[in-house]
Amino acid sequence: MKRFVLLLLYALTITLPTVAEAADRLDWAVILHGGAGSLKRDGDPAHIEACRQGLADALTIGRDMLSGGRPSLEVVEAVVQNLEDNPVFNAGRGAVLNHDGEHELDASIMDGRTLACGAVGGVRTVKNPIALARLVMENTRHILLVGPGADKFAAEMDVQQVQQSYFSTPRRRKQLDEFLEKEKNPQGSLRQGEKELIYGTVGCVALDRQGNIAAATSTGGLTGKKFGRIGDSPLIAAGTYADNRTCGISGTGIGEQFIRHAVAFQISSLMDQRGMSLAEAAEFVMHKRLKKGDGGVIGLDRNGRTSSVFTTPAMLRAAADSSGLSEVKLWKQ
Amino acid sequence: MKRFVLLLLYALTITLPTVAEAADRLDWAVILHGGAGSLKRDGDPAHIEACRQGLADALTIGRDMLSGGRPSLEVVEAVVQNLEDNPVFNAGRGAVLNHDGEHELDASIMDGRTLACGAVGGVRTVKNPIALARLVMENTRHILLVGPGADKFAAEMDVQQVQQSYFSTPRRRKQLDEFLEKEKNPQGSLRQGEKELIYGTVGCVALDRQGNIAAATSTGGLTGKKFGRIGDSPLIAAGTYADNRTCGISGTGIGEQFIRHAVAFQISSLMDQRGMSLAEAAEFVMHKRLKKGDGGVIGLDRNGRTSSVFTTPAMLRAAADSSGLSEVKLWKQ
Repeated sequence: MKRFVLLLLYALTITLPTVAEAADRLDWAVILHGGAGSLKRDGDPAHIEACRQGLADALTIGRDMLSGGRPSLEVVEAVVQNLEDNPVFNAGRGAVLNHDGEHELDASIMDGRTLACGAVGGVRTVKNPIALARLVMENTRHILLVGPGADKFAAEMDVQQVQQSYFSTPRRRKQLDEFLEKEKNPQGSLRQGEKELIYGTVGCVALDRQGNIAAATSTGGLTGKKFGRIGDSPLIAAGTYADNRTCGISGTGIGEQFIRHAVAFQISSLMDQRGMSLAEAAEFVMHKRLKKGDGGVIGLDRNGRTSSVFTTPAMLRAAADSSGLSEVKLWKQ
Repeated sequence: MKRFVLLLLYALTITLPTVAEAADRLDWAVILHGGAGSLKRDGDPAHIEACRQGLADALTIGRDMLSGGRPSLEVVEAVVQNLEDNPVFNAGRGAVLNHDGEHELDASIMDGRTLACGAVGGVRTVKNPIALARLVMENTRHILLVGPGADKFAAEMDVQQVQQSYFSTPRRRKQLDEFLEKEKNPQGSLRQGEKELIYGTVGCVALDRQGNIAAATSTGGLTGKKFGRIGDSPLIAAGTYADNRTCGISGTGIGEQFIRHAVAFQISSLMDQRGMSLAEAAEFVMHKRLKKGDGGVIGLDRNGRTSSVFTTPAMLRAAADSSGLSEVKLWKQ
């Protein structure tokens, strides 16, 4: 009898969470970001409003597509394309300028169902780098194409190419001028200057009705970057990761820290190997592995629970899900 | 009394492994590889002997430096430079040719003490890409430089630059010709062809007398690669990782699989998070996450225990340590 009761309890222990979990899974969910950094609450109100509106517009696209049953891979591409097209963010149009006053764009995308992924680094002619990253994923056996070769691939594909001037905005020109000025002044703290400017990388993670997770990230990189520097955004495992078994992640911040600690993959791995929740895993990596001020991540788990963790004063982000969640946030609450 | 005994047992449980481990740590150890693939036992004897001799020569450099007390970071750089200079391997001189008949080289290096790292992708003018990767690590705030920008960085640094013809060998020209021939023939299995040619990426991991681990990887990539394709070799977490707390890893094989599964980092993470041994973690990732034939890894843990795991018929590798181990191996034993 005692053995029977124990067996029953054991069976319940195994079964109940599964049942509860299935009931708990949201139909769909989406979370997106527009970068992390030091946006001041008393900064230019027009810029703050433009950030908020940009996030809200992109969120609407994600929500409408997901509630309409579209696959997460399409959704993250469409949301990131919208953010790339918005000059407020540091991706696509509105991307920062490198040391030579040019734009070099990075992007990556990953399908959590198959672990298929694609990425491009240092492209100069592609209106929507995230679209090119998806073409790398679907039309080549490779994951990462960089430099002039990636632009050559774009020319062979059905993807819109533009002049460099398309990406430029007066705001980014001013930021480069300030950067070059600081660089000349050996007393100026370049690293601090950079931190203020790391805003604007964009990313999106979505869970669709089929239970598939996808993640995407796109950026113009660092203002004043030199020598073909590539950050974490186009690197699978660093800035982007998606695995249906665990979560989807898009990160933003000091890219080198995200590469060194394989941030996006590490969060997924902690959930997989240690049974942590997404929030626990993201908190662990951002607070215990990275340093304060390094940046932030957004993500969602296979049940559609969204999460954002950042160690900068601000992170531009928005989330919606099938339970009615719909929020746009800029600072810690 | 019973409580006292339990407490004593508990104290012993904690203390003993630490004591045993300290006594167990080797003074120094080194392991290196020259790629994984399908080298046939009855293949060209001269080529097989050249592989064996190349591994033995590189091993001697590592052994002499480590027993002489040199730091692991210097050792992995010197060993990989030696392998780059050897035309037998697909790195530096002897690198494969891309689709346009040119050489584009990738390399990365990581310091397990600080997690500092540096990498270059798609460089065309640098005699020793691993030396440039180390300069990225030590002379910039970045980790990864790619394409023409990386060559521009090389020109500003004290690093030897060479003409493309320096890297070329008749053997690699023949391999490209065969590749292009197969590409024209739609019945030809390109993927199979590639697998036969993935030999020759080189890498090294070392533990020095100070207990510091370093890892380095260098490659010419895939024969016939197009569009600025970058594989796992220059990507920290994919092809290279080093962390004094766990291990150092250098991988080789189907680069896209190594990127997708963050192979080098994943092995380190399984040791850290699950308490697996290096061999257990490497076996798990190579057999459970990757597919048969995807490639192999070499590595060593913080006690200097070396390990190599591969799912190809052959992996060119060599290892030595302060206990007297000294071996060169090409196939499974």
